[in-house]
Amino acid sequence: MADVLASTAIRDEALEKAARLAEWLRSDAAERDKQGGTPKEQRDALRSSGLLKLLIPKAYGGDGAKWSLVLEVTRILAAADPSLAHLYGYHFLCLVAPHLAGSEEQRGHFYRSTVVNNWFWGNSSNPLDHGIIGVREGSRVIVDGAKSFSSGSPDSDVLAISWHDSETGDYYEGIVPTSRRGITVVDDWDAFGQRQTGSGTVRFHQVVVEEEEILHTPYAGQTVFSTLIPVLSQSILGSLFAGISEGIIAEAKQYTLREARPWYTSGVERASDEPSTVRRYGELWTEHQAALSLLEKAALRLDAVWEKGTALTEEERGECAVLAAAANVKAGETALLLSNRIFEVMGARSTASRFGYDRFWRNARVHTLHNPAEFKLRNIGDWVLNGKVPTPGFYS
Amino acid sequence: MADVLASTAIRDEALEKAARLAEWLRSDAAERDKQGGTPKEQRDALRSSGLLKLLIPKAYGGDGAKWSLVLEVTRILAAADPSLAHLYGYHFLCLVAPHLAGSEEQRGHFYRSTVVNNWFWGNSSNPLDHGIIGVREGSRVIVDGAKSFSSGSPDSDVLAISWHDSETGDYYEGIVPTSRRGITVVDDWDAFGQRQTGSGTVRFHQVVVEEEEILHTPYAGQTVFSTLIPVLSQSILGSLFAGISEGIIAEAKQYTLREARPWYTSGVERASDEPSTVRRYGELWTEHQAALSLLEKAALRLDAVWEKGTALTEEERGECAVLAAAANVKAGETALLLSNRIFEVMGARSTASRFGYDRFWRNARVHTLHNPAEFKLRNIGDWVLNGKVPTPGFYS
Amino acid sequence: MADVLASTAIRDEALEKAARLAEWLRSDAAERDKQGGTPKEQRDALRSSGLLKLLIPKAYGGDGAKWSLVLEVTRILAAADPSLAHLYGYHFLCLVAPHLAGSEEQRGHFYRSTVVNNWFWGNSSNPLDHGIIGVREGSRVIVDGAKSFSSGSPDSDVLAISWHDSETGDYYEGIVPTSRRGITVVDDWDAFGQRQTGSGTVRFHQVVVEEEEILHTPYAGQTVFSTLIPVLSQSILGSLFAGISEGIIAEAKQYTLREARPWYTSGVERASDEPSTVRRYGELWTEHQAALSLLEKAALRLDAVWEKGTALTEEERGECAVLAAAANVKAGETALLLSNRIFEVMGARSTASRFGYDRFWRNARVHTLHNPAEFKLRNIGDWVLNGKVPTPGFYS
Amino acid sequence: MADVLASTAIRDEALEKAARLAEWLRSDAAERDKQGGTPKEQRDALRSSGLLKLLIPKAYGGDGAKWSLVLEVTRILAAADPSLAHLYGYHFLCLVAPHLAGSEEQRGHFYRSTVVNNWFWGNSSNPLDHGIIGVREGSRVIVDGAKSFSSGSPDSDVLAISWHDSETGDYYEGIVPTSRRGITVVDDWDAFGQRQTGSGTVRFHQVVVEEEEILHTPYAGQTVFSTLIPVLSQSILGSLFAGISEGIIAEAKQYTLREARPWYTSGVERASDEPSTVRRYGELWTEHQAALSLLEKAALRLDAVWEKGTALTEEERGECAVLAAAANVKAGETALLLSNRIFEVMGARSTASRFGYDRFWRNARVHTLHNPAEFKLRNIGDWVLNGKVPTPGFYS
Repeated sequence: MADVLASTAIRDEALEKAARLAEWLRSDAAERDKQGGTPKEQRDALRSSGLLKLLIPKAYGGDGAKWSLVLEVTRILAAADPSLAHLYGYHFLCLVAPHLAGSEEQRGHFYRSTVVNNWFWGNSSNPLDHGIIGVREGSRVIVDGAKSFSSGSPDSDVLAISWHDSETGDYYEGIVPTSRRGITVVDDWDAFGQRQTGSGTVRFHQVVVEEEEILHTPYAGQTVFSTLIPVLSQSILGSLFAGISEGIIAEAKQYTLREARPWYTSGVERASDEPSTVRRYGELWTEHQAALSLLEKAALRLDAVWEKGTALTEEERGECAVLAAAANVKAGETALLLSNRIFEVMGARSTASRFGYDRFWRNARVHTLHNPAEFKLRNIGDWVLNGKVPTPGFYS
Repeated sequence: MADVLASTAIRDEALEKAARLAEWLRSDAAERDKQGGTPKEQRDALRSSGLLKLLIPKAYGGDGAKWSLVLEVTRILAAADPSLAHLYGYHFLCLVAPHLAGSEEQRGHFYRSTVVNNWFWGNSSNPLDHGIIGVREGSRVIVDGAKSFSSGSPDSDVLAISWHDSETGDYYEGIVPTSRRGITVVDDWDAFGQRQTGSGTVRFHQVVVEEEEILHTPYAGQTVFSTLIPVLSQSILGSLFAGISEGIIAEAKQYTLREARPWYTSGVERASDEPSTVRRYGELWTEHQAALSLLEKAALRLDAVWEKGTALTEEERGECAVLAAAANVKAGETALLLSNRIFEVMGARSTASRFGYDRFWRNARVHTLHNPAEFKLRNIGDWVLNGKVPTPGFYS
Repeated sequence: MADVLASTAIRDEALEKAARLAEWLRSDAAERDKQGGTPKEQRDALRSSGLLKLLIPKAYGGDGAKWSLVLEVTRILAAADPSLAHLYGYHFLCLVAPHLAGSEEQRGHFYRSTVVNNWFWGNSSNPLDHGIIGVREGSRVIVDGAKSFSSGSPDSDVLAISWHDSETGDYYEGIVPTSRRGITVVDDWDAFGQRQTGSGTVRFHQVVVEEEEILHTPYAGQTVFSTLIPVLSQSILGSLFAGISEGIIAEAKQYTLREARPWYTSGVERASDEPSTVRRYGELWTEHQAALSLLEKAALRLDAVWEKGTALTEEERGECAVLAAAANVKAGETALLLSNRIFEVMGARSTASRFGYDRFWRNARVHTLHNPAEFKLRNIGDWVLNGKVPTPGFYS
Repeated sequence: MADVLASTAIRDEALEKAARLAEWLRSDAAERDKQGGTPKEQRDALRSSGLLKLLIPKAYGGDGAKWSLVLEVTRILAAADPSLAHLYGYHFLCLVAPHLAGSEEQRGHFYRSTVVNNWFWGNSSNPLDHGIIGVREGSRVIVDGAKSFSSGSPDSDVLAISWHDSETGDYYEGIVPTSRRGITVVDDWDAFGQRQTGSGTVRFHQVVVEEEEILHTPYAGQTVFSTLIPVLSQSILGSLFAGISEGIIAEAKQYTLREARPWYTSGVERASDEPSTVRRYGELWTEHQAALSLLEKAALRLDAVWEKGTALTEEERGECAVLAAAANVKAGETALLLSNRIFEVMGARSTASRFGYDRFWRNARVHTLHNPAEFKLRNIGDWVLNGKVPTPGFYS
């Protein structure tokens, strides 16, 4: 009972902090979208919010929250600024790497260090990228190469990195301080959306990774539990998409109420009285609610799966993966739908650059591509039709 | 704690009964769809299942289950046979009329009598139908006229009826035995879908409604709580639509696995290995999951609202009505989508009449029309955009 | 100039005849859909209309019309009765088999005989069906087996048939009188749509096919021109789909104007004044016009290709095949859209069986499955993206 | 016959010029989209191409081409650069104002002067804008105010302007040199799409409009023919949308063939071999072909209507307006569909800013809003359902 109360208090506090941060982020999100680059001040605000330790178990000094709460905070931030939400969600994706694939010591060490140092984690690992090679040198490894799509690497404190072993070809992951000699964060991300995620290149030149920084379990030896990364990633991005949809509805509503004019033949006095506009809000909101409800259901399943730890079975992991994939696809499709259609309830003048409303679509479009819906849907269908759980993989 | 266990036991038992009934109903659902008419044997099976008292409070001898469980049972039945599910769901819609608009005595009487006599309720009330007139004669009323769309009237034990008062024009509801002198159930329902719902005409010739059968609160005097009928109706039909979708996926899957042949240029050996087929199953299942998750969320909200009773506020009722409407629209759209598209993963031979698979679409199409999505979406939009809760009405 | 005038006169006459026939067919189309079976009287009306020789070159006593006119007549008939339109269009598909794959004598003989005897052709050939075997016996062939999907076989005068040679496995086509000894038209078609097309089984027991009835060119030896059958088939079915859409709009319009009631909260007096209803008509009509315009463009291309005869190049055939496939897919999708959505502008009462409006969807759904859109779209895409014309095949 | 040859020659030459211009415009369209502003060099290239006199009757020194050719040229340019295509199409929209509403002298004068001076016309008229007032001063008018959405005003030679009479309130149009004292072209257009159309503000300070520059027919006195402006405008924008779709397919194809990588689980070697990608190209191309075919049909109808001149009947105008509106809506929807979905066949890396592919969606989205589809669809539906032609208006 005390536990429930405590977790409720943590939840309330986290949501309130998230809401306050979101309000502040919203105020210049359109402007920062134009600038791109690294949102240093905003990243620091996330740091000082205390929200970076939300998921870390209490035993290590964290808040001990569940993934569902992390996802909810991600969504709230995304409604205001999907780039910052992305950085926030991926912080945890990287942070749990030692939990999933490290030794118990590594898990403890990295969790504790994150709490103590208030680390902001960045991502620079990708199993599909064969451009990074690690050469064993005794117990340590020397890493060389370059990695693209390194979301959150600029201004990060630590980086989750990966390499293929020069001899065995095996895939390894490791955790290093971003300031480690030989690491250059290039910050050359220049997509038309998610522009402040810093998802650019990181170069590795003779980077030393110490033994204790190399995660215990190479990819080849993973347990069912240690293959959860793609499920987490899809859950985070799904929450981000739902946040985009929420942001769209909130901002469009303000515009329609305050700025929009009714069409001259509509016969109504205010744009917000036009039945086709009202109906369209109903339609878009309904789709969003459906996507959101599925996400929430998938998040609860993820909480349960996470708690199982290494006792997790393939079937349990599979069902959770299918649900997470479905929620991700649906939330992504919905964000695309809303970001496209919403202009029809705002009208021609809402396309002025000063509003920056095109960023909704640009953000949604860019991040719904990194893990193609086509292949997620096939995985889902294979489970529905043929009863096969998705093969644990880099993206499934 | 004992309560929780008891309610879990009731739930498990109800779901198991529903599953067994559904399996049996499925066996000749296609055949009975062709026949139309009154599914007497199937109605009697519902009677003897004990499921007709599921929602009735324990104080009156019922199972004391929540609406969410009634809706889940409705959905399970609908996956096999949406007509029977409709009869089942509407049984409760009629049965709670005294709870909503009757006196406390009436509520008790009708709940208890239903338990004791195992009544199956039918519907013959509709506020939009001005064709039924009641003439006061002392404390009783004499009712004349005819009512169409009287779902579940054939083979019913009691009927929820309604009339407009000949003098005041006020709208009243009452409960009478179907066998009451002057009542003729015409059983002339002949739509192309939901063919065994008996949604035809009931004629009233000089039908006496006794004082204790007239619901206490005329429409004009309704409380917030007593206006929940359209919310309940939309929740029941939404569950029915989701059940249709579930049935489609289940039956199509068997067909694709056992009967379908791969297209001759597809290069795969089994139809179930064709990637576009697998993807399509993924797509359709994802849409269904989104609709279902929203329905489940709306059902929990309905449980909470129902428990509030007369303490229910307009705002609470409004939010619940909006959610129920959204879930209903989404589930209806999804059933239309699936019933239309599913043939593309089964192929040309699945259109043979002996399978009767067109009934999915016919059932979905017929029952998504009685409360137009257009106007439900406007109500939702008005809440989203303008902050107005739906005006409690016959359909909102 | 005289030619142009003559062809205009033929066109005017054909369209007028088609319009008159359509009007008559419409009067009991819903009723006959329920009956299924063979529309003998209606087939005879087509015979006596003179329209069965429309495409036959003047040299052989026909009207010398182009395919585009045949397709237009097919569309007009389909607006009233897609089964009869199917029989009409497929009559020509079978009738041109000797033109495509026969000798010059065969072409002349079968064209002339059709004019003289006013033959109605039926289909019982299908290269995918390996169940029919022909055994050479000197210059003739003895055919045994059974063929499903034999559209138009009941009450036909001649049948286009096909078999695989018992020794070489080669695929052959032939033309025989339906009354030939050993042929049994089973008339067991029982799909839920296109119910009067008689697309059931034909059995062949020791059926003699004489030398002059065997088409000259076996499949293996086909020229570019002789592979046009799937292009013709897709053009005919595309026209049929567009006709279904036309019929839907015409019938729904009458219903909305005469029968439909406005929703009680709509605030308009007539259903036809409700803006969302008016908008929906605009939407559906626009989609139909787009599909129709593409079909008309494809039909002109087909006329040009047909005129080239054996001079036709693979590239020209390919572009025509791509256009025909695109028009077919679009028209099919549009018919599905309209037949599904149209109920939303008619309302709940339009689902009464006596109107039979569900036949629109049933007809569209059944006949959009025989040549899957998925594979047609891949052929189109392969041309758009990779510059590859479709491999001439049984369905492409 | 000579006429036909001559017009074929003009057509061939115009299309060839357009294709060459388009190729050049394409080379830096993405770059110029980022810059916005006035594409002076490109506008001058249009001037020196000779294409600005395409529609002007031969009697006045023009090429005497039909609207359908102007629309085709617009489409070709739009495939490369929708901003320039917009400027080109609207040049003619303004240029024909004297033809529609001027005296015969005005028509001759402005046509001839355009040929002689190679004028590029810009737009600064809008009947919905009541911010511009004209005060009669003898035979001339003094105009004051500001007009937004003045497409093509920067770098224009002449401007079509409009005002409401200070006394009568009547709406008038006039033609003035852009250099006229008191006119300031502000060039403050800053929407997120169609960024080089210069659709910003023009200010009028005591601008003298001479008698011969005031179009003869005030709005109130318009003939059927003189109300064609919205039909022309919708036809131009529809062509522009179709051009956007063409450009998308062309550019995406190059990307998929040259840059895209297959998904790592797809099992194919080249992205262009992935069946779901190929199918998607087929789908998108098919939709584009349907939209294009409808546009072409509408353009031919416009040619016929234009030729009728003042003999044009309301019914003829109405049917043409309905067709133009349908083609516009369909082409706009298709451009939105393609610009959104195309990324799914290119993949995540195609979102790099250096490609600038988001401009397709931004351009399509901005220009499909100025005349809402909702109201065009109602006009179409009113004709389909109720047989009413659209009331000639500013946008219908």
